[in-house]
Amino acid sequence: MLAAGRCNKTSKGGVPAGGMAERITISIDAMGGDAGPEMVIPGAEIALTRHPGVHFILFGDEEVVLPVLEKHPRLAAASEFRHCDITVRMDDKPSQALRQGRWRSSMWRAIEAVKTGEADVCVSAGNTGALMAMSKFCLRTMANIERPAIAGIWPTLRGESVALDLGATIGADAQQLIDFAMMGGAMTRPVRYRPPDRRPAEHRRRGGQGLEEVRTAGRILREADLPSLDYRGFVEGDDIGKGVVDVVVTEGFAGNIALKTAEGTAKQFAALLRAAMERTVMARIGYLFARTAFTALKAKMDPRRANGGVFLGLNGIVIKSHGGTDAEGFAAAVDLGFDMVRNDLQAKIAADLSLYHRAGFRPDAASEAGNK
Amino acid sequence: MLAAGRCNKTSKGGVPAGGMAERITISIDAMGGDAGPEMVIPGAEIALTRHPGVHFILFGDEEVVLPVLEKHPRLAAASEFRHCDITVRMDDKPSQALRQGRWRSSMWRAIEAVKTGEADVCVSAGNTGALMAMSKFCLRTMANIERPAIAGIWPTLRGESVALDLGATIGADAQQLIDFAMMGGAMTRPVRYRPPDRRPAEHRRRGGQGLEEVRTAGRILREADLPSLDYRGFVEGDDIGKGVVDVVVTEGFAGNIALKTAEGTAKQFAALLRAAMERTVMARIGYLFARTAFTALKAKMDPRRANGGVFLGLNGIVIKSHGGTDAEGFAAAVDLGFDMVRNDLQAKIAADLSLYHRAGFRPDAASEAGNK
Repeated sequence: MLAAGRCNKTSKGGVPAGGMAERITISIDAMGGDAGPEMVIPGAEIALTRHPGVHFILFGDEEVVLPVLEKHPRLAAASEFRHCDITVRMDDKPSQALRQGRWRSSMWRAIEAVKTGEADVCVSAGNTGALMAMSKFCLRTMANIERPAIAGIWPTLRGESVALDLGATIGADAQQLIDFAMMGGAMTRPVRYRPPDRRPAEHRRRGGQGLEEVRTAGRILREADLPSLDYRGFVEGDDIGKGVVDVVVTEGFAGNIALKTAEGTAKQFAALLRAAMERTVMARIGYLFARTAFTALKAKMDPRRANGGVFLGLNGIVIKSHGGTDAEGFAAAVDLGFDMVRNDLQAKIAADLSLYHRAGFRPDAASEAGNK
Repeated sequence: MLAAGRCNKTSKGGVPAGGMAERITISIDAMGGDAGPEMVIPGAEIALTRHPGVHFILFGDEEVVLPVLEKHPRLAAASEFRHCDITVRMDDKPSQALRQGRWRSSMWRAIEAVKTGEADVCVSAGNTGALMAMSKFCLRTMANIERPAIAGIWPTLRGESVALDLGATIGADAQQLIDFAMMGGAMTRPVRYRPPDRRPAEHRRRGGQGLEEVRTAGRILREADLPSLDYRGFVEGDDIGKGVVDVVVTEGFAGNIALKTAEGTAKQFAALLRAAMERTVMARIGYLFARTAFTALKAKMDPRRANGGVFLGLNGIVIKSHGGTDAEGFAAAVDLGFDMVRNDLQAKIAADLSLYHRAGFRPDAASEAGNK
């Protein structure tokens, strides 16, 4: 994996110095997620209370969205609603979703609003495959980027790191891994607001062996020595949680496995802790005394806080929320979208990519140079 | 990933009905691990107290091993010591270890004792790459097995599962994944002593996509419908901790990442819990009341309990202990080796493989059949 820059997601204080920033508009696929508008609408309202200036464009079926929206007058006042006939289902295959939902579904139109410039970012809790397929089709990849990636915020002992690719595609060649490193690195800057000279990037490695493409990507990043990226070499899976680096890069299959396994282990630990605290009378008394501490711990380990995957490498920002999350979790995904826009993610990625490509570093060129 | 059969490691009660089993001999690389004999010798003695009939053959440098062994007379009485000139270092590359340590190192000779039949299983805390390279070179792979795998016991909410490959090699084709499933399945039977008709095997999958070889392996396992393996399809990383299946199969790169990430997350959770319990006076009081519960939880989450990777697919059993573990952890690895021998792992694997190969299922044959 490749990693770049310790980061703390700060929704507050992100306004650039020099006064009021422009109003941010967020397009929302109101039909996404297991619970649909019942979860999305209250979620957007929670985010609105944290970012009062934000404007929303909500896309969905008026018959189900409007009754829910009526109960949230504050969000209604800050939103514009647009009816869509089609809803992409959570189990639709990407090809199916594209065939049936292109141009007309709430998911498509929420993404399209970013393309047309009406919205700055799109947030959807709809199914990942469909959302990625539609985002690629509608927004297209950025110049010099072959494949988009999904990046997530990974809670660590030191704060938060960025991890990618969490499952946009399977496999990645050296150039794609380098692209992931640069895009993830750019993402930590908005997230962390810190000078660009301390931004480690690391590559996951195992034992004495190594994947050829990972090694090549690592060598090039070291040689390229980009001002925006402090490349730190390889990390192992158990280093992610320690927060030893700010960005961890790997191809999507391994990244997705790492993410899911970490989620599973955290749930397992929480379940064991709960069971332990309920087993004896003494433990229950202890729990009562330490309740505040447990509540704080629970909040810290709350998977909803880390909800939201950023689609990187497209001509526009799309945030994927977990489909099974609740309003609080969806609000975190909206917060993440807000942060990415406020901190000019797209411009930072474009600047880093252009710097790299002007320097002429490519896996082929580097290996030729290496063989001389 | 492929998975097969819920399992509880039971070191007790494993003696086959009908009286005294044959004496088990375990060869130990006394020089392995970060702490070497200081950790290995007391570890073997702990295992001996749990399996009083076991005989050990200890390999190592007499100058460092004998002084430690003198302090453990009980182990000394149950052991035979053999001096070796060469010690494989923890950072030796596999090729280096083979070149310098073949025939003469404590690691080699401990493995060789299994080959000659003097020992039933070898346990080493030495470096993984060297141990695997020497094991392959010395023991060779079983008939019909192309690549060995490393299998581990994965603690779950329901007990324990077997996960493989945890990093013997990178990548795996369909046939290798099938081999992993069969070997892992055979391993759960010794571990659990239960009738062979409820042994789910599952294959990890991500989203709507899938690796071709994983799909092929899944299809063949379903078609083969082996009596020893109840194939359950694909699982995701967060299912491992739930223990929904007994065996989880994946190629080594992803498996190693899953393992390390789970370890990292568990450590992260433990650190946060510790910090939370120390932060306020009330929390400290609560901790005192619930101390027994915390101790039980700690024991349950103790990574030392799950120490020990089984090298599967070789003509003999080799157990790899974590190099950084302590005596208690090393004892768990010895226990695991004991269990594998006592429950006839090798014979079970051979029987399952022969059943499969007699049925004529091969990825190529199956895909031809599928195309008709």
